[in-house]
Amino acid sequence: MLTEDQRGSIDVVLVSPRNPLNIGAAARAMANFGFSHLAVVAPYAPHWREARSAVGAPELLATAAETATLAEAVSACTLVAGTGTLAHRKPEQPVVLLPDLAPFVQRELARCGRVALVFGPEKHGLTREDLSFCNVLIEIPTDARQPSMNLGQAVAVCLYELAARLEPRAFKAGSPKSEHKPESSAEEPSPATVCADLELLAGLVEEAMLASDYSPASMRDANRHDLRLLLRRLAPARKDTRRMLGLFRRIVRKLKRVPKSD
Amino acid sequence: MLTEDQRGSIDVVLVSPRNPLNIGAAARAMANFGFSHLAVVAPYAPHWREARSAVGAPELLATAAETATLAEAVSACTLVAGTGTLAHRKPEQPVVLLPDLAPFVQRELARCGRVALVFGPEKHGLTREDLSFCNVLIEIPTDARQPSMNLGQAVAVCLYELAARLEPRAFKAGSPKSEHKPESSAEEPSPATVCADLELLAGLVEEAMLASDYSPASMRDANRHDLRLLLRRLAPARKDTRRMLGLFRRIVRKLKRVPKSD
Repeated sequence: MLTEDQRGSIDVVLVSPRNPLNIGAAARAMANFGFSHLAVVAPYAPHWREARSAVGAPELLATAAETATLAEAVSACTLVAGTGTLAHRKPEQPVVLLPDLAPFVQRELARCGRVALVFGPEKHGLTREDLSFCNVLIEIPTDARQPSMNLGQAVAVCLYELAARLEPRAFKAGSPKSEHKPESSAEEPSPATVCADLELLAGLVEEAMLASDYSPASMRDANRHDLRLLLRRLAPARKDTRRMLGLFRRIVRKLKRVPKSD
Repeated sequence: MLTEDQRGSIDVVLVSPRNPLNIGAAARAMANFGFSHLAVVAPYAPHWREARSAVGAPELLATAAETATLAEAVSACTLVAGTGTLAHRKPEQPVVLLPDLAPFVQRELARCGRVALVFGPEKHGLTREDLSFCNVLIEIPTDARQPSMNLGQAVAVCLYELAARLEPRAFKAGSPKSEHKPESSAEEPSPATVCADLELLAGLVEEAMLASDYSPASMRDANRHDLRLLLRRLAPARKDTRRMLGLFRRIVRKLKRVPKSD
């Protein structure tokens, strides 16, 4: 059952949207399906202003968050799901077909996590760097001859799916009980790590790599990318992340006191 | 499993669409989800031309059918499903929530029927007369505070639902077998009546009502409306409709030979 509270734990994130009509359409779909948390990353300022001030624009556009980077937009999230056409690249994350997404989101909400659905710009979709912040990729099952969806329609279809599959059906006599049953009871109660802490940890590991001469500075960007993906594969619980953060802080501090060997 | 052939048995019908962007968006969603049969009823000519000639317009716009009336557009269909917001009127047909629509369509396709999904104009939706051609109404489960969807997004959501729920999931090892099992084997093989024949029958019954002085000419419109709904509730098999057509033709011919009583 998707309560008001749970909908409040799902963010829609638009990365650099261009067309104000598409921004408006995305916001309208959110209002149609009862979602209210919108974040817009590095929007083109004139179009963003235009979309916000359009006649009949949903209330949620006025309260939308505006961030410079995707990292900021998803910093409080524990499950980041990217969308887009996967035809042209081999995905580095697990791919979930949209009709199968609801159980993932359900599990995340059950353990008090925060979910972001991330949509890329109209022209080229999410970049490889954007995708490095994603735990999973959502694939909307479209026809191979015309796979690319309009932004506003893609948002509508994703939110419809979540609203329809997570919500109770009022008209059905016996509404289905929650199907979520944790495989092991030890796994359930442990809250996930928010993106901001994963990014902090990636930064510290990277510093340790440099300070220990494990990896040259020229590899910095590539390392950061791989670390992001690695940490999302590991999906550490919050308390484990805290422990690793403490450990790497000490390691980095110590390494910086060691005189350079050459 | 939704084959190419079965998709070919589903029509998308737009009644008097105004905004060429919405027509284009509806067509794009059809292409995204592999549908190709579009019919447009009484479109506003300049906007319809504009939508058809837009850069990058899907192929299916060029082959779309254009009809003057909804009756013509759905004449070959056996299941007509109307869409729209039901907040302001009491529906005269059964209402199916979109997440529950797939089995209805599946059954219709299994008995070689033809299905129409009918979308009304942007401003006011389908009229009461439009709805009299519908066997069922589709309700998209939207938030009560913002129930009305954009036309292009509504089409996208409906087609996504059918494509996702009727299609095999290629990635799943054991793809689910068809869940459709007829309750009684007698019901299954009987093909449904196409809309054109129901309309023919409604016309003959109406003539019989007039010729028999059952009902005055002033009641003609109201009678036609009620007859349409009645026949859709009865949902006669094709062979039963043929029998009734034969009977009412005789009745009308005979009645017309009886001299008026007053």
